[in-house]
Amino acid sequence: MKMDAVTFHPIGYVERDGGGEGLSGDELRARPARIVLDPALTAGLLGLEPGSNIIVLYYFHRSTGYDLQVHPRGDPRRPLRGVFATRSPRRPNPIGVTTVRVLRVEGNVLEVVGLDALDDSPVLDIKIDGG
Amino acid sequence: MKMDAVTFHPIGYVERDGGGEGLSGDELRARPARIVLDPALTAGLLGLEPGSNIIVLYYFHRSTGYDLQVHPRGDPRRPLRGVFATRSPRRPNPIGVTTVRVLRVEGNVLEVVGLDALDDSPVLDIKIDGG
Repeated sequence: MKMDAVTFHPIGYVERDGGGEGLSGDELRARPARIVLDPALTAGLLGLEPGSNIIVLYYFHRSTGYDLQVHPRGDPRRPLRGVFATRSPRRPNPIGVTTVRVLRVEGNVLEVVGLDALDDSPVLDIKIDGG
Repeated sequence: MKMDAVTFHPIGYVERDGGGEGLSGDELRARPARIVLDPALTAGLLGLEPGSNIIVLYYFHRSTGYDLQVHPRGDPRRPLRGVFATRSPRRPNPIGVTTVRVLRVEGNVLEVVGLDALDDSPVLDIKIDGG
């Protein structure tokens, strides 16, 4: 059981104008994006409002493969680090975790800022930060 | 693609003396626990050391089902909140996210404090906090 594969069904996906390819993490975080929730789950947003800080778990759907040790930020002058001591998207289970701020809630759509996910990234979970 | 199911293979599991059942989150976090990594992934720990703060993603393997709206901490006097505005383990994708401190690294085993996972919880990812 403890090492069996686990399957998740996305609760929604990220929508970002322009897609986001080629932007740095900082550039992505600076631009608002939308989380489009499965409409069947909309009731689960009760209590989220502008200014709420939430943790978003998403799937790095463009990431393929990984190395166990990497040069941070791809800079060969920086000493090798284990992938678990980095935030690289190329990891055994490519899940991103980012804390973002809610700008607006409209039905099943959350507008947020601080998210570094690309357009169409599957969203696995949303949690209140702290709570 | 953006709503297709996603399958992950645990990178390790939690080992906790006494199992942890019946303890509160605070009690769990106060007691050291071990993360036993798949030995094939040990090289991925390079750079983690006593004092490192890491984010641990794990599967709430005992959690079954969910409600879209819940009374926080199961207290019926507290107004209903959407599950995405809580940290309840009973959620559509039962993934826990906790920041913990490394006490010791020994081969493929991390001793940590601050983890609220029960014994045998499958670990999905470890990331440096900040980084």
